[in-house]
Amino acid sequence: MSPFTRIPAEAAAALGEKRLIVEIKRWLGKTSPPAPFGIGDDCAVVPSSGRAMLITTDPVIYGLHFDDSVPARAVGAKLLKRNLSDIAAMGGRPVAAVVSLALAANTSVAWLHEFYLGLAATARKYKVSIVGGDITQSPTGFLGAFLTLHGEAAGKRIISRSGAMPGDRIYVTGTLGGSLLGGHYRFTPRLVEGTWLAQRQEVCAMMDVSDGLAKDLHSLTPAGLTPAMRESAVPISAAARRCAMQTKQTPLFHALGDGEDYELLIVVCYRADCTKFEQAWQRRFPRLRLTQLGTFVRRDQLPEGAIQLANFSGYEHLKLD
Amino acid sequence: MSPFTRIPAEAAAALGEKRLIVEIKRWLGKTSPPAPFGIGDDCAVVPSSGRAMLITTDPVIYGLHFDDSVPARAVGAKLLKRNLSDIAAMGGRPVAAVVSLALAANTSVAWLHEFYLGLAATARKYKVSIVGGDITQSPTGFLGAFLTLHGEAAGKRIISRSGAMPGDRIYVTGTLGGSLLGGHYRFTPRLVEGTWLAQRQEVCAMMDVSDGLAKDLHSLTPAGLTPAMRESAVPISAAARRCAMQTKQTPLFHALGDGEDYELLIVVCYRADCTKFEQAWQRRFPRLRLTQLGTFVRRDQLPEGAIQLANFSGYEHLKLD
Repeated sequence: MSPFTRIPAEAAAALGEKRLIVEIKRWLGKTSPPAPFGIGDDCAVVPSSGRAMLITTDPVIYGLHFDDSVPARAVGAKLLKRNLSDIAAMGGRPVAAVVSLALAANTSVAWLHEFYLGLAATARKYKVSIVGGDITQSPTGFLGAFLTLHGEAAGKRIISRSGAMPGDRIYVTGTLGGSLLGGHYRFTPRLVEGTWLAQRQEVCAMMDVSDGLAKDLHSLTPAGLTPAMRESAVPISAAARRCAMQTKQTPLFHALGDGEDYELLIVVCYRADCTKFEQAWQRRFPRLRLTQLGTFVRRDQLPEGAIQLANFSGYEHLKLD
Repeated sequence: MSPFTRIPAEAAAALGEKRLIVEIKRWLGKTSPPAPFGIGDDCAVVPSSGRAMLITTDPVIYGLHFDDSVPARAVGAKLLKRNLSDIAAMGGRPVAAVVSLALAANTSVAWLHEFYLGLAATARKYKVSIVGGDITQSPTGFLGAFLTLHGEAAGKRIISRSGAMPGDRIYVTGTLGGSLLGGHYRFTPRLVEGTWLAQRQEVCAMMDVSDGLAKDLHSLTPAGLTPAMRESAVPISAAARRCAMQTKQTPLFHALGDGEDYELLIVVCYRADCTKFEQAWQRRFPRLRLTQLGTFVRRDQLPEGAIQLANFSGYEHLKLD
């Protein structure tokens, strides 16, 4: 049986990423535990005899996550930082990583050298050990590096994506949009912020923004609820404004739809004292913006003038050619 | 800077796998701990507050590890079994896996379905949870699945590749060679045998045979020593004999050089009572052959008539086109 089809309707791209994942979970049956212990959160939490272990995996692929314009060191750094961002999003501390390489036959040693220097520098900075991996030669000119990162809870708890309630506030770190202008590899994973947030009782759910706010917010939104946000609340990046001038789209379009922000999206409990929370943040992280985007409301209670998220889309991983 | 080169001498393939790994370890510097805690063993051992955690990663790639002739379920099973074999080789017990997919745009859903059913069935059989992963669309028609498997020590110790001494005996399970005729996906990972062996005091080193005995034996051989084996001792498989008829090579050539046997290669201490060890094996595993291949001797003491391993080669992962 061939893994390929000429009939578009039979292709994974026609199903779409979201439905494909639903299918995969179904196909896996009982071997796929519920999130956060399995598919569906930023990291999988694996109970251990010691602290909870966190595992996450993300690749960098030539022509997709980087191209000739990105320095090789930045590619190696990005590979690890993408995964660190997932550990940060659960309030974890990274421990060790394995890297699996699929190399085109003509991959240059000099490029690989630079790639590994970038990976090593980032690993040192965040105290991650690179403990193993695998190398294969790809038969199609494909070049990709697949990293799996292992971490553990930094404090007493980890923060999953679920748990938002009506009235809970939605916060985001930094500014959003325009990562194509360089942010997609120059970002800083929010590890220090993530562990700090995991220790705050006000925080009840968290994730990182990797596919764009408009798409990722769905993962934080419980059934029956919807995020109520005003346009004026969205922290639009300078890069999003520059992108908008080139694309003739609005800056908001880029802030909500562009992927690879790698900022933290935080849900703060409706009972919490927001002012106290914001002041504590500002004392601890005076140089990193924290913005209240809005609140979760019941679907039938979306106020007039709120952003219609359905009008914005995030990054779709599978597309028909 | 382009990751690709047109100058063959600058290609990773020209360097070769072994030297590339040496380079990578050098480039990584202190972020790459010594084996078995880093690159260089079947699994990486990560100290934890509980039992030692084992991590290993191996992919399956279309055109390399499988093709249209292999059933999709067998591909899914093979992906996990390859990694289970590495856990077995250290005497570990598997726990959880993440799978990263790089899909060509025209990958069929039906094929993926079968692939995941095979993966799930194998995961159930060996009590592994599939806890997460990632999906990307490959820009080159590439199709590959990258699995990282997490395990832990099953008993009081794990067995690494190092520790062989002069006079130590070399054993292998099953028979060798000819995996291309179907063994490369029909094999059974030696998990039960691995945990049993890890509990035997006689065993001082172990690994699985994945790139062919001639190549893999090097990883068990300490500096200054060499394996002394007679041709007649090698347990040649029926498949190796069938291959030999087609290729006009000797059956021994296939037994020593073919990859993907996924048998266990075991070093038994020179002080141990071999007869007692072999009898214990036979009582526990009456249906699986265990063969004493030979012993480790000093390089200048290789007896006449011993196999010259340099005349045989194993699987090389990187090749010039």
